[in-house]
Amino acid sequence: MKIAFLGPHASFTQLAAAQLFPDEELLPQVNILDCFIAVENGSVDMAVVPLENSIEGTVSMTLDYLYKTPDIKIMAEAVMPIAHHLMVHPHCVVEKIEKIYSHPQALAQSFHFLDTNYRNVIKQDYSSTAAAAKHVSENPDRNLAAVANTFAANLYNLKIIERNIQDFEQNHTRFIVISKQSHDYSHKNLTLLGKKSGLLITLPEDHAGGLHQVLSVFAWRKMNLSKIESRTLKTGLGKYFFFINVVGKWESTVQYNALEELKTLQIKVDFLGNYSEFLLNS
Amino acid sequence: MKIAFLGPHASFTQLAAAQLFPDEELLPQVNILDCFIAVENGSVDMAVVPLENSIEGTVSMTLDYLYKTPDIKIMAEAVMPIAHHLMVHPHCVVEKIEKIYSHPQALAQSFHFLDTNYRNVIKQDYSSTAAAAKHVSENPDRNLAAVANTFAANLYNLKIIERNIQDFEQNHTRFIVISKQSHDYSHKNLTLLGKKSGLLITLPEDHAGGLHQVLSVFAWRKMNLSKIESRTLKTGLGKYFFFINVVGKWESTVQYNALEELKTLQIKVDFLGNYSEFLLNS
Repeated sequence: MKIAFLGPHASFTQLAAAQLFPDEELLPQVNILDCFIAVENGSVDMAVVPLENSIEGTVSMTLDYLYKTPDIKIMAEAVMPIAHHLMVHPHCVVEKIEKIYSHPQALAQSFHFLDTNYRNVIKQDYSSTAAAAKHVSENPDRNLAAVANTFAANLYNLKIIERNIQDFEQNHTRFIVISKQSHDYSHKNLTLLGKKSGLLITLPEDHAGGLHQVLSVFAWRKMNLSKIESRTLKTGLGKYFFFINVVGKWESTVQYNALEELKTLQIKVDFLGNYSEFLLNS
Repeated sequence: MKIAFLGPHASFTQLAAAQLFPDEELLPQVNILDCFIAVENGSVDMAVVPLENSIEGTVSMTLDYLYKTPDIKIMAEAVMPIAHHLMVHPHCVVEKIEKIYSHPQALAQSFHFLDTNYRNVIKQDYSSTAAAAKHVSENPDRNLAAVANTFAANLYNLKIIERNIQDFEQNHTRFIVISKQSHDYSHKNLTLLGKKSGLLITLPEDHAGGLHQVLSVFAWRKMNLSKIESRTLKTGLGKYFFFINVVGKWESTVQYNALEELKTLQIKVDFLGNYSEFLLNS
């Protein structure tokens, strides 16, 4: 199978895609829209894109494109703790590091460590953590370092000299696997966190309590929500859609009846699937 | 007054801050956390940070820091349409442009224009649109171009040769003004879109229908929501808080009674303020 992912090579999304699809062909895309287009026109079977907290893409785009392409569904979700490592070329003299390269947000997320241990070393913004690692690998004669992930270290043959330099432990990124077909995605080597459903809900008009009415449908069935996010359709105007995650496996007709009830209330529902959530390694 | 903003110089956030605070001292910060710290420790009076759709910061961080710093409130919100312009040094021979620099997401957002008009020109990722503009200004002898905003063009004396090259018209970024004191922020020269309130709501436990109960409090009072977003507190665990916007001016006791009712339901509410929403120029 061909799997698109939000690039560049050695991005955090590739780190996720490589764990989700270890034996498939991975194809980097320059942005989230291109991942959706590749799935839409059939040039790939699936794509891996960030859903929450990525430093690589404006992830609200992911919700917007899910809304705009109703034939694209979610096959799986994956959570990855964010881990930044300090890496150098094997020839580097660590005591003489003169510059540290990374994406501005990765440098910011490692600020405390870098400020304590490399205060007088120049920190240089780069377009991505992966590109920073590549730049370090291409300049073995200078004493440069990059803040990037393990995948970048392996790809560019860099040596990790300090692991987990990020300031906060709880930071993580969520990814989804999108597809036009309903592949039954499962993975025997990854930790399964649970099942969930994804829904896109559009209210018939912007009236007070509209969302409350939607949630009533789930509440009396004791269907628990784990995520809810509203997205505006136009600047300054009162048109919204909502992305909702409902916890658990949908095995009885109770859950599917909820969708029917929403439809009778004139509420537009795009059911994105009932899928597994996996824990990835950082 | 001193106003912190998410930098670097000539970032989109500075473009917003300069319109909101034309006569104040603007101080760039390297990340969203530093904006919050500057407000918290009193080294600035207010800060401007992105709330939605920024290409410069992971804006979910803004919600997380609002949650972690309960004494920081919202003074105002501002919406800015995203506009990318193609700019060069005044000495540049436009027909001979050899490279176009910008943030990867700005290049992606201008893909259609660049592919149609500059297909054979190298597109080079840069850490920010502002840094790309600075690089072009520092290399007048080469024929370089940058995709950036009007503020960057003015700051670095670049000539805009093509305006509004972004692919989608409806893209916009939202910013908030944060402060520890309750300044009464108003601005006579900006278009006022309306009033809204911001609330952070934490449920006592992760039970089915908890959010539904919260929304009931607003629904029967005909208080309309314009934004709702859940944020996980820990990876994989069922602890959440919600950021909610309620539309309109809070002038009667009805609205404030809603907050009292939430508290009696053992629901933790951080009222971030009732503030104005402004429309900015791109």
